[in-house]
Amino acid sequence: MSYTLKQLADILNASVQGNEEIVINSVASVENALEGDICFVSNAKYLGALSESFASAVIVKEDMLESTHIPALIVDNPRATYARIVDLLYPQQLPEPGIHSTACIESSAKVSASASIGANVVIEANAEVADDAVIEAGCVIGRNSKIGKSTHLYPNVTVYYGCIIGEQCILHSSSVVGSDGFGFEFDKNEWLKISQVGGVRIGNKVEIGACSVVDRGALNDTVIDEGVKLDNHVQIAHNVHVGAHTVMSRGVGVAGSTKIGKNCIIGGMAGIRDNIEIADNVMITAMTIVSKSLRQAGSYSSTTPIDDTKSWRKNSVRFRQLDDMAKRIRQLEKQINNKG
Amino acid sequence: MSYTLKQLADILNASVQGNEEIVINSVASVENALEGDICFVSNAKYLGALSESFASAVIVKEDMLESTHIPALIVDNPRATYARIVDLLYPQQLPEPGIHSTACIESSAKVSASASIGANVVIEANAEVADDAVIEAGCVIGRNSKIGKSTHLYPNVTVYYGCIIGEQCILHSSSVVGSDGFGFEFDKNEWLKISQVGGVRIGNKVEIGACSVVDRGALNDTVIDEGVKLDNHVQIAHNVHVGAHTVMSRGVGVAGSTKIGKNCIIGGMAGIRDNIEIADNVMITAMTIVSKSLRQAGSYSSTTPIDDTKSWRKNSVRFRQLDDMAKRIRQLEKQINNKG
Amino acid sequence: MSYTLKQLADILNASVQGNEEIVINSVASVENALEGDICFVSNAKYLGALSESFASAVIVKEDMLESTHIPALIVDNPRATYARIVDLLYPQQLPEPGIHSTACIESSAKVSASASIGANVVIEANAEVADDAVIEAGCVIGRNSKIGKSTHLYPNVTVYYGCIIGEQCILHSSSVVGSDGFGFEFDKNEWLKISQVGGVRIGNKVEIGACSVVDRGALNDTVIDEGVKLDNHVQIAHNVHVGAHTVMSRGVGVAGSTKIGKNCIIGGMAGIRDNIEIADNVMITAMTIVSKSLRQAGSYSSTTPIDDTKSWRKNSVRFRQLDDMAKRIRQLEKQINNKG
Repeated sequence: MSYTLKQLADILNASVQGNEEIVINSVASVENALEGDICFVSNAKYLGALSESFASAVIVKEDMLESTHIPALIVDNPRATYARIVDLLYPQQLPEPGIHSTACIESSAKVSASASIGANVVIEANAEVADDAVIEAGCVIGRNSKIGKSTHLYPNVTVYYGCIIGEQCILHSSSVVGSDGFGFEFDKNEWLKISQVGGVRIGNKVEIGACSVVDRGALNDTVIDEGVKLDNHVQIAHNVHVGAHTVMSRGVGVAGSTKIGKNCIIGGMAGIRDNIEIADNVMITAMTIVSKSLRQAGSYSSTTPIDDTKSWRKNSVRFRQLDDMAKRIRQLEKQINNKG
Repeated sequence: MSYTLKQLADILNASVQGNEEIVINSVASVENALEGDICFVSNAKYLGALSESFASAVIVKEDMLESTHIPALIVDNPRATYARIVDLLYPQQLPEPGIHSTACIESSAKVSASASIGANVVIEANAEVADDAVIEAGCVIGRNSKIGKSTHLYPNVTVYYGCIIGEQCILHSSSVVGSDGFGFEFDKNEWLKISQVGGVRIGNKVEIGACSVVDRGALNDTVIDEGVKLDNHVQIAHNVHVGAHTVMSRGVGVAGSTKIGKNCIIGGMAGIRDNIEIADNVMITAMTIVSKSLRQAGSYSSTTPIDDTKSWRKNSVRFRQLDDMAKRIRQLEKQINNKG
Repeated sequence: MSYTLKQLADILNASVQGNEEIVINSVASVENALEGDICFVSNAKYLGALSESFASAVIVKEDMLESTHIPALIVDNPRATYARIVDLLYPQQLPEPGIHSTACIESSAKVSASASIGANVVIEANAEVADDAVIEAGCVIGRNSKIGKSTHLYPNVTVYYGCIIGEQCILHSSSVVGSDGFGFEFDKNEWLKISQVGGVRIGNKVEIGACSVVDRGALNDTVIDEGVKLDNHVQIAHNVHVGAHTVMSRGVGVAGSTKIGKNCIIGGMAGIRDNIEIADNVMITAMTIVSKSLRQAGSYSSTTPIDDTKSWRKNSVRFRQLDDMAKRIRQLEKQINNKG
C-alpha cells in the first residue's frame, strides 16, 4: 500500500508542511527510516536524529515544526497517528467469513453469517458468535458463552462455558477464559473443592495476551471492564474486577476478589494479593508485591536494586539484621545524647 | 435446584435450628444474601453482618448459634458444608459418555465406554482412559499414558507420552503434563540436550490449573502425590516430588529434583530452587524466593514492603550500602564504648 | 537397547579401562545404579559414592581413573557423554512421515514428504514445513511461516503468520510464537492498538518450553539466535534480540526491544526491563529484576534472603526506614567525630 502525504492528511484530519505529494509506503523509526518511510517524533530528544533522518516525511506536533527539514504531518499525538498509519499501510489480513468444514458447531449455537470460524473450532450448545467475529483454528467456546462483534480469537484459545466476551476484543493463543477459580476448604484431611459457579464478563476492546488466564467467579462473575489490555502470562483470579482501560504487563498476577481501578498501569510480573482495592490511576512498577490496598492514585514499588552478585551477597545477608541494626542505631543515639 | 433446610440437613448429616421447611435455592455471601439464599459464617467478625442479613438461612458452628436470628444449619466446618451445598444447588453439567465422531483414537488405545471423549481429541497408541473420565475438545493424550477414573481434562490440555494421571483429577485448559525437563550440558560450544526419558506420575484428586506445566523426569519420574492442588501458571520441573495435599498458588515455580513435603501451602509466584527439601507443613508467603532447604514446619518469607515509588527509591538505593552501614554501626559502637 | 562398553567407546570415540565386553542397557545416577547401568562422575565429591556404586561402568575424565574400581569410559566431558548414551539407549520414538488424514493444509503450503503432520494440524497458505520436521496433533502454523528441517512441534503449539523457525528446533506444547507485541498509545481516552507488523526469526537448535511465548516485532522482527534454550513460561517481548546459546530458566520475562548477548544464563523468574542491553556471558540469578543495562560479563542479583516469617516481618518493616537509618548513622559519626 502507498499513500501521498496529502492522502494521509485527508484520512487522518492532519495538516501538512512541505511537499504533500511525496509518497509514503512504510513506517520506520527516525534512525532507520529511508526513502518512502514516514517516522514520528514526539520527544525533543529525537530532534537531533530527525535532522539527520533519511525519512520521506515525519509526524510531529506543531511545536516541533521548526526543527523539521523534511515534509511533515502535523498532529496532536504523533505516536497515535503513527499507529493509524501502520494500519493503513499494513492492512490486517483477516480470514474470509464462513465456517470451515471441520468446525464442530452444536445445532443450538448461533453463529453470525459474517463471522469466520476456522478449522477444528468447537462451539458448544447455546453459544453465540456475533457478526464479524474471527475464531481461528482449534479454539473451543463452551456452552452458553458469547463472543461479541468483531472480536478475534487467535488459534487454540479456550473459552469455558457461561463466559461473556465483548466486542472488538482480541484473545491470543493458548489463553484461557473461565477456568475454575482456586477455591478449596480443608476438611477431613483433604482439600474439598469449592465449585466455581460464577462466570466471566469481559467488556469491549479488551485484549488478552498469549497464555493468559481469566478464572471464572466462585458465585458472582469475574469482571474485566472495557478497554483493558492484558499482556501475556497474566492471571486474573476469581471475582477480580479490573476497571476500564487498565493495562497489565506480562506475567502480572491478581489474586481473588481484588478490585482494581480504572486507568491503572501494572508493571510486569507484579503480584497483587487477594481481597484488596487499588484506586484509579495507580501505577505499579515491575515485580512489585502489592500486599495491601492502595487507596491513592500514584506510583508504588517494592523490589531491591540489582548489583553484582558478590556485592549483593554481602548486602543481602544484612537484610536479616535490619531490625537489629535499627535498634543499635537507637541505642547509639541514646548513649551519645546522654553523654552530650 | 432447591431444597428445604431439612433436606439439606439430612443429606449433610447436620442439625437445624429454626424453621426447617424454609426453601433454599442458592448460596450467597452474608452481605449479599436475599430470600432463598443460604450463607455461612465461620468467623465471629461476620456476626454483625449476619444480624442484618436477608438470607433465608445460615450455616454456622454450634458456638455461634446464639447470635443467629435466622434458621441455621449447624455443622463442624461451615465453609466445607457451604461447598457441598454449592454442589447440590449447582450440579455440574458433564458431557454425555461416548466418543465424538471427530476424535482420533489409535486402535491400541483403551477407552472406557463410560468415558466422554470430545471433538478433535487425539489419543495415541496404548494410551488408556478409565471409566467416567471426561476428555474435552482438543486434548491430546500421548502413547502409553493413562488417565484415571473420573478425571476431567478441560479443552486443549496436552499429556505427553508415558504419563500416569490418577483418579478424580482435574486438568485445566492449556496445561501440559510430560514436557521435557530442562536439561542441557555445554559441550563443543553449544548446549547438548540431555534427553528426558523419565515420566510423570500424578496421584488421585490432583487439580492442575490453566497453563500450568509438569515436566517429565530426566531418568526417573516427576511425582505429584494425591490431593495436591496447583493453581494456574504453576511449574513443576523434572524429578520434583510434591507431597500429598500440598497447595501452590498461581505462578509458583519449583525447580528440578526438589522434594516438597505434605500439606504445604506455597503462596503465589514464589520460586523454589532446585535440589532442596521442604518439610511437611511449610507455608511460604507470596513471591518469596526459597533458596535453601526448609527442614522445619513453619512460615517463611522474603520480599520487601511496598511503598510509594519516591520513598521506595530513596530507601532502595540504601540496600546496596547495607554492609557498609552495618560496619559503620559496629565502628560507632567501638568508638562509644572506648570513650565510655 | 544394549551395548557393550567397547561398542559405546567406538561410537563415542572414547577409550575404555577394564572389561570392555560388559553390557550396558541403561543409565542411572552413581547412587542408584545397578548391574547393567552406566553412571557418570564429573566431580570429585562423588568419588566416595563411586567407590560403593553397583554400576556396571562409569564415565569419567582421565584424571579420575585411579579412583575407579569398575569398568570406565574415559572422555573429556562425562555429562555430555552420558547425554549421548541416553540417546543411544533410549532412542526417541518419532511418528512416521506423512500427513494425517484430519490435517488441514492449504493448497499453497509446501510440506516435505519426509515431514510428519499429526491429527488436526492446520497449516495455512504459503507456509512451509521442511524435511523431517514433526508437527504433532493440534498445532497451527500461520500463513507464510516456515518450519525448518528436523524441527519438532509438540501438540497444540501455535505459530502465527510470518514467523521463521530454524532447523532442529523443539517447541513444547501450548507455546506460542508470533503473538502481538504489547504496544498501545493512549489517545482520546482509550488505548489505541499499535498493530504489530514485524515477524519472528528463530535460529537453529532453539528449544522453547511449554507455555512460553515469543511475540512478533512491532515493525522489525523479534530475533532468537541459534542454540538458545528457553524453559517453560518464558516470555520474549517484541523486538527483543536473544544472542546465540543463551539459556533462560522457567518464567523469565524479557521486555520489549531489549538486546541480550551470547552465552548468557538467566535464572528462573528473573525479569528484564525493556530497551536495555545485556552483554555476552552475563549470568543473572533467579528472581532478579534487571532494571538497567549490564555491559560487563559477570553475575548479577537482586532479591532478599528467605527467613522465618516472624523475623522477616521485623526486618522487612525496617526497609522503609533505610534512608533514615543511613542518615542517622551519618549524624552519629559527625557527633562522635566532633567530640573526638
